Amino acid sequence: MKLVIVGGVAGGASAAARARRLSEAAEIVLLERGPDVSFANCGLPYHVGEVIPQRDKLLVTTAVRLRERFRLDVRTRSEVEAIDRHAKTVRVRDLDTGRVYEEGYDKLILAPGAAPVRPPIPGADLPTVFTLRTLGDADRIKALVDGGVRRAVIVGAGFIGLELAENFVRRGVATTILDRNRQVLSAFDAEMTTAILAALRERGVEVLLGQTAEAIAPGPEGVTVTLTSGDSRTAQLVVLGVGVRPENPLAVRAGLEVGPRGGVRVNEFLQTTDPDIFAVGDAVETAEFGTGERTQVPLAGPANRQGRIAADNAFGRASKYRGTQATAILGFFGHTAAATGQSEKSLKRAGRPYRKVYVHAAHHAGYYPGAEGLSLKVTFDPATGKLLGAQAVGGAGVDKRIDVLAVAIQAGMTVFDLEEMELCNAPQFGSAKDTVNMAGFVAGGLLRGDHPQTDWEAVAGLADKPLLLDVRTPPEFAAGHIPGAVNIPVDELRGRLAELPKGRPVVAYCQVGQRGYLATRILMQHGFDVSNLGGGYKTYQLHTTARPEGTTG
Amino acid sequence: MKLVIVGGVAGGASAAARARRLSEAAEIVLLERGPDVSFANCGLPYHVGEVIPQRDKLLVTTAVRLRERFRLDVRTRSEVEAIDRHAKTVRVRDLDTGRVYEEGYDKLILAPGAAPVRPPIPGADLPTVFTLRTLGDADRIKALVDGGVRRAVIVGAGFIGLELAENFVRRGVATTILDRNRQVLSAFDAEMTTAILAALRERGVEVLLGQTAEAIAPGPEGVTVTLTSGDSRTAQLVVLGVGVRPENPLAVRAGLEVGPRGGVRVNEFLQTTDPDIFAVGDAVETAEFGTGERTQVPLAGPANRQGRIAADNAFGRASKYRGTQATAILGFFGHTAAATGQSEKSLKRAGRPYRKVYVHAAHHAGYYPGAEGLSLKVTFDPATGKLLGAQAVGGAGVDKRIDVLAVAIQAGMTVFDLEEMELCNAPQFGSAKDTVNMAGFVAGGLLRGDHPQTDWEAVAGLADKPLLLDVRTPPEFAAGHIPGAVNIPVDELRGRLAELPKGRPVVAYCQVGQRGYLATRILMQHGFDVSNLGGGYKTYQLHTTARPEGTTG
Repeated sequence: MKLVIVGGVAGGASAAARARRLSEAAEIVLLERGPDVSFANCGLPYHVGEVIPQRDKLLVTTAVRLRERFRLDVRTRSEVEAIDRHAKTVRVRDLDTGRVYEEGYDKLILAPGAAPVRPPIPGADLPTVFTLRTLGDADRIKALVDGGVRRAVIVGAGFIGLELAENFVRRGVATTILDRNRQVLSAFDAEMTTAILAALRERGVEVLLGQTAEAIAPGPEGVTVTLTSGDSRTAQLVVLGVGVRPENPLAVRAGLEVGPRGGVRVNEFLQTTDPDIFAVGDAVETAEFGTGERTQVPLAGPANRQGRIAADNAFGRASKYRGTQATAILGFFGHTAAATGQSEKSLKRAGRPYRKVYVHAAHHAGYYPGAEGLSLKVTFDPATGKLLGAQAVGGAGVDKRIDVLAVAIQAGMTVFDLEEMELCNAPQFGSAKDTVNMAGFVAGGLLRGDHPQTDWEAVAGLADKPLLLDVRTPPEFAAGHIPGAVNIPVDELRGRLAELPKGRPVVAYCQVGQRGYLATRILMQHGFDVSNLGGGYKTYQLHTTARPEGTTG
Repeated sequence: MKLVIVGGVAGGASAAARARRLSEAAEIVLLERGPDVSFANCGLPYHVGEVIPQRDKLLVTTAVRLRERFRLDVRTRSEVEAIDRHAKTVRVRDLDTGRVYEEGYDKLILAPGAAPVRPPIPGADLPTVFTLRTLGDADRIKALVDGGVRRAVIVGAGFIGLELAENFVRRGVATTILDRNRQVLSAFDAEMTTAILAALRERGVEVLLGQTAEAIAPGPEGVTVTLTSGDSRTAQLVVLGVGVRPENPLAVRAGLEVGPRGGVRVNEFLQTTDPDIFAVGDAVETAEFGTGERTQVPLAGPANRQGRIAADNAFGRASKYRGTQATAILGFFGHTAAATGQSEKSLKRAGRPYRKVYVHAAHHAGYYPGAEGLSLKVTFDPATGKLLGAQAVGGAGVDKRIDVLAVAIQAGMTVFDLEEMELCNAPQFGSAKDTVNMAGFVAGGLLRGDHPQTDWEAVAGLADKPLLLDVRTPPEFAAGHIPGAVNIPVDELRGRLAELPKGRPVVAYCQVGQRGYLATRILMQHGFDVSNLGGGYKTYQLHTTARPEGTTG
């Protein structure tokens, strides 16, 4: 048995190590185009920021180690140029010597990754315009920062763009970040990104939404980036973080099927349309967990798991990949945003029915010092309560709630299961009713009909406005409320029912939804047509803050 | 409909609030013996330690608030002395006025909680000997500490004992803690407690295991506590934290069935043997999630959930309690220990077949600064891989892993599901292969037969010792190894197979199990009778450190 693996980072390196554990006898050739195998891609921005000062910490393993420990035939700087599926050979070019040779295989695993997209704009190829994918890229960006770059422009406010922005701030580089979307972190629903947007601005990052770089030109102080608005910014360093594209040319030339966005098509065994060729990692199109729809999710965790599974299948063990949930997380100076499963945006795009709830709470018992705010959004099927997705933003404890919900989604659980979860509870760690339980209570109440809920977008879209009933205290009301709302504190509500119209729908709200829920229960039982505003005033604020802002910095 | 609830803390208060949400029309009477409703029990030790200096922060809600917001008829200092099930009345004593009266009910919910056990030893009733259950208890203990107590003895190294020890240390009180078990935190398996034990000692707490207080006598410097060993300690303050006992006299007198450990028997609807009487919280015997066996778990989370469910059922909504997983967590100066599901001890006691794996890892990517060590133990069914329990100890990230596993147990997941979990991964939060995934890989490999594992206890118990093969580097070996082991580093193993005997079983090990796994794979494929030592040298150390220690401080 001879296994050839193309690409030696996350998926490829995992496949190779797994293959050796499965077979001491197999011949395993690992071909990597770059100089490094298995480096910590996710650490690159933090090396630039000197959070991880030692470069060699990013080398998860080395070619030497892989040879010694796993007896792999590792060849770096070796580019695979073609696959001859009939002869079962690959054509390899040694990038150092220029030598080209054929290498035979019994099974082939493709793990070439994805390449950062370089938009076709004038100046995108200037020497101070970078993408960030490899250690070499990080070295070059860091060298410029070390050399005293004072201004940078980052195009794209996705994960890499924001991580880099954090590290540029750390290094004292004045940073402008652009995104053609009208929000940062487009994988998230807009309202869940407002805290990150605010944190960026607090740290002095200029954030320009709804626009991108139209051209980059050399100038006296580095380069000048022309924006969609016609405005411009000068910088000594530009980083393009506008997404990645599967490295599919090898697969395409070999006649393997690829999807509409370029990902190599694989079945649940990660087999391409050629049964002897597997593909894994950022280069493939996989199934979205839950819906089974085709998706491309370039993340290290799935890549590692896929590598392992492809190796199993290459050695004749039927092993299935369950699909990708797109669990992802971002840290920005102590602020955290994380998501798993489907966003509301993606549900809307797919035309899939859903409901959603928001919980705004503290990450542990409020009476214990250090509690940090946390906002959680959960989407679910309105017929069955089955969980579809979750997003959270805050500080500490965001990762925990999203991990809990990622597992719940994996298990096919419903919002009713969230009500029953028995999670760690001590004042420093959680609450007797955890944020996740609370999301279950709110959603469960909604589905049982105990707790009719109206989402802000629905209120905003109505021609005949319902009566907005603010049930918070007068000082809370005075500090800010939804225009047009009337104020009756929940504790006075039972005595002031006569002030409310019976014929007109009432939408009650409080700060986060809890008092609004009680008000809804009271009014329902007194015959009012009432619902609670989902997630209360705080959610209303998230939605209105997240509105398109043009180019304001 | 008239609902009477006995007990106004976690379960009772939850039941009352839920009941009001279900019915505006119902008459709801909440009878609480103490002066406070719904206080934060879990916060009491931290109030003593002045981590939570403001006492009123511990009042989750007040009688006034419950009256205003939920229109509850809240009566504090009101003790229920008897239930007349035939007449459907309770006899109530007003503890302030002494007045005794009857209160009728349609449905009754008992939430009396559990009382701390006061062992029947001489001096247990001395004025400076306390238990810690109520705000009043905390006030009295805190007053003594504020008054300059210099030495304290805590009897019982369970959750409350250890939390109090932390806070005594904070206040500069020299503390001795005793436990009749030969370990701290007896809810945990002994080897998982060694880090907490070490942390206690590092902070200067004297920990005396395998002994308890046999007598307490007044003396010139406070009291003298006589230990099982015959030795003694003087102190100005003694706290008894040796467990709780369900407050069942009311139920027993009413002829309701109680279990062998005193918990009020309830069905899945939390109904006692009288269908109009429900019981919740620390006073009840519930089903252990998974096994369905009867158990008593006094925790706030389950009490809250039960209160809600009992109220549902009282109002005719069939709502089932799924059982208790006993998810629990302890913090001690940045060290964390958490558990969910069944301990190995309880599996052994029940004679239930199980296997176990250990993972020792960092709580996030090792290359990012601040990674803290974490040890995770997972038990599972050897036939199906179904998860049975998990325990973890370390610092940050322990709560997250146990919450993830609590959900996985709730969902009935297997170790194979752990392999596929897609959890948050960024350098500050996790790893592409999370600790939970790793536990799945180890356990899955074990069950698939790829990765035979021998537990240390099995090796230790064998008459014919296997060859212990240490596959770490010579410096690691020199720094400490299992007596009798031979050292062949894994990277040299393939070239030194001739040094190993084919007839004799080999148990390979490394530091945490990963290199031992590779060594096992290599040797298996070369025909050796080999297994990997579960959790490596680190787990061996946990086991040997956790051995009985008698009275050493």
